[in-house]
Amino acid sequence: MARRSMREEILESGVQLFLERGFNAAAVKDITDRAGVPKGSFYNHFESKEALAEVALERYGETRRMGDLADRSVPPVERMRRHFEFLRDELPEFTKGCMYGNFGAEVVDHSEPLRKRVKGGWEYWADQLAAAVAQGQSEGTIRASLDPQQAAYYLTSAWEGTLLRARADKSAEAFEIFFAVTFDALLA
Amino acid sequence: MARRSMREEILESGVQLFLERGFNAAAVKDITDRAGVPKGSFYNHFESKEALAEVALERYGETRRMGDLADRSVPPVERMRRHFEFLRDELPEFTKGCMYGNFGAEVVDHSEPLRKRVKGGWEYWADQLAAAVAQGQSEGTIRASLDPQQAAYYLTSAWEGTLLRARADKSAEAFEIFFAVTFDALLA
Repeated sequence: MARRSMREEILESGVQLFLERGFNAAAVKDITDRAGVPKGSFYNHFESKEALAEVALERYGETRRMGDLADRSVPPVERMRRHFEFLRDELPEFTKGCMYGNFGAEVVDHSEPLRKRVKGGWEYWADQLAAAVAQGQSEGTIRASLDPQQAAYYLTSAWEGTLLRARADKSAEAFEIFFAVTFDALLA
Repeated sequence: MARRSMREEILESGVQLFLERGFNAAAVKDITDRAGVPKGSFYNHFESKEALAEVALERYGETRRMGDLADRSVPPVERMRRHFEFLRDELPEFTKGCMYGNFGAEVVDHSEPLRKRVKGGWEYWADQLAAAVAQGQSEGTIRASLDPQQAAYYLTSAWEGTLLRARADKSAEAFEIFFAVTFDALLA
């Protein structure tokens, strides 16, 4: 039981530091220091920082509440709006960003296992959004001329860029514009 | 003259490595090795890697051909399309991305001088795009209900996210979707 808990502490610390600093600037020692465990213990639980990052991406993805996006009892435009509001409200003081976006900028050109995880995570997310767009179109609440898969893919890009701009601006403007243009122009 | 040329070589090497690896993974020694100069010479020309990065962002921005975006002799939709095609065609094999985007993910939470440069670069870019959107609206080629500043800001976000997704996918799909949704749905 003790070993399992140490692994969990390292994993949680990795998730936080990959969000705060990205992959390269989060050293193994930073991760074990934050977890309050000896640096040497890291390699009892993970083969490498890359191996930890694979699990951290999975853990992070599990907290994105993708299930809410698929909840057909909520009207599709409303559940898409709530979904992005949830993602926005997770970000304190316009720092950190998305782990997928951080890794997309830093890591995917240099690690094939992490590239595949990031790609897969974004595909899954876009599929959930596309289903909501298609449902909205069938109910007449989303512009019928959009290709649902393309619109969903575009929204994931726009969201990831919005996080970058919010972090550079240190203001809510990027989010306000994301919601206004997405819901009042692109989908409407 | 010799000293000026060495500074230039370090700067060009910095631009390339910040694009390929981002800020944290490009060490000063990597930069001087690529430039073919001794590591010790770096500090004769730049106070720090952060100081080099400020100049590198400026240099990179100068190569984005912002002047083309303001050329009112070309119809606004056409010059926006050419502008994004130019940015796309600069990226070999879906690697590297945008220096502003890379720094937006990695650096802006940790360096106030670089955050201000990134913010300022994006603002300038969005202003050029907004002028094109407004001209297109006045000529009836861009949807009149859009707010030009908001639409331009949104396009910069969508573009930066598109680069992240193209790097993760290692395919042209992200660009194809960017062009289709931007020009056939959002602006049309």
